[in-house]
Amino acid sequence: MARWEPDAAGRLQQAALELYAERGYEETTVAEIAGRAGLTERTYFRHFADKREVLFHGAERLQEAIAEAVWQAPADVPPLDAVAHGLRRITPFFDERRPDSRRRHAIIRSSPELQERELMKRGSLVTALTAVLARRGAAPATAALAAESGVSVFHLAYERWIEDAADRSYAAHVDETLASLRALAVSPAAVA
Amino acid sequence: MARWEPDAAGRLQQAALELYAERGYEETTVAEIAGRAGLTERTYFRHFADKREVLFHGAERLQEAIAEAVWQAPADVPPLDAVAHGLRRITPFFDERRPDSRRRHAIIRSSPELQERELMKRGSLVTALTAVLARRGAAPATAALAAESGVSVFHLAYERWIEDAADRSYAAHVDETLASLRALAVSPAAVA
Repeated sequence: MARWEPDAAGRLQQAALELYAERGYEETTVAEIAGRAGLTERTYFRHFADKREVLFHGAERLQEAIAEAVWQAPADVPPLDAVAHGLRRITPFFDERRPDSRRRHAIIRSSPELQERELMKRGSLVTALTAVLARRGAAPATAALAAESGVSVFHLAYERWIEDAADRSYAAHVDETLASLRALAVSPAAVA
Repeated sequence: MARWEPDAAGRLQQAALELYAERGYEETTVAEIAGRAGLTERTYFRHFADKREVLFHGAERLQEAIAEAVWQAPADVPPLDAVAHGLRRITPFFDERRPDSRRRHAIIRSSPELQERELMKRGSLVTALTAVLARRGAAPATAALAAESGVSVFHLAYERWIEDAADRSYAAHVDETLASLRALAVSPAAVA
């Protein structure tokens, strides 16, 4: 008797964000999330394996979107700039969701288990970007380093965007973080 | 009747590296590791919480050694160079253990669970280095970015050092990786 539930995953995620923020991540049950969304536990488990996964809904799609945009950067764009190009392209995705992202960020900070999952997602983004930069023709070592650095920019720009009292766009934070990285890296090697 | 076991942790780690390499990580039991080291399971669990932890013996000490060396870099050394200074200082620790490090690396690659633990250790090194760079006077955003980039250098230099058929020292790979990062970062921003 499985009924079609319009955007069940999105509704479950919204309900989870609300409940985790109100009561705490540890204290909330899947039954409560499903109830708040007007759905059953069974429907929940059709979409998410556990309590953690609901917070990472869309993360794979986001990763694919970044990788695709990096792939589509003009061929003569160097690796790190290609990554920045990819990050700028996902700006609308982030900027539309800032209040939810802020709630989600606070919840993830509250739980080592969730931080672990977030680190795994970062690792998987590094792997995906290394592959796409290599496909664009970068040498393996360069691709790996540009992917690592690009994901650092992704992550730090995200944190600044979350905390930005002036609500400037994600793209602005990507540009600033990339500029900081360039400034940091050009400083002379003063130690023998 | 607990006897004093000279370097029990080191012997257990050595036994674990041998058995994980011979039989596979999943297939090896704590009882077998303790047996190979000539120790009891009880002694094993006095040193390590589980099967994973034995592979990360010394990781905390290593992290402290890096942070301490970063702290001791001359005061006028910029953040990323201070991290490189810290990484060069741990070269003897790595270079003395290359055969074990190669075995360990292959074992960790064989298991998503171990890769997850390794990513957590990286995250914890970023946190430690961010703190020490801030103590050295870097602005928070700069400290975070230099710590992220420094840990990328740490990690990629380690992978190249593991794979280096010419067995060059870890410090040489740190210098090369840092030079690659500088080259990557100075490339002009060609994308609007």
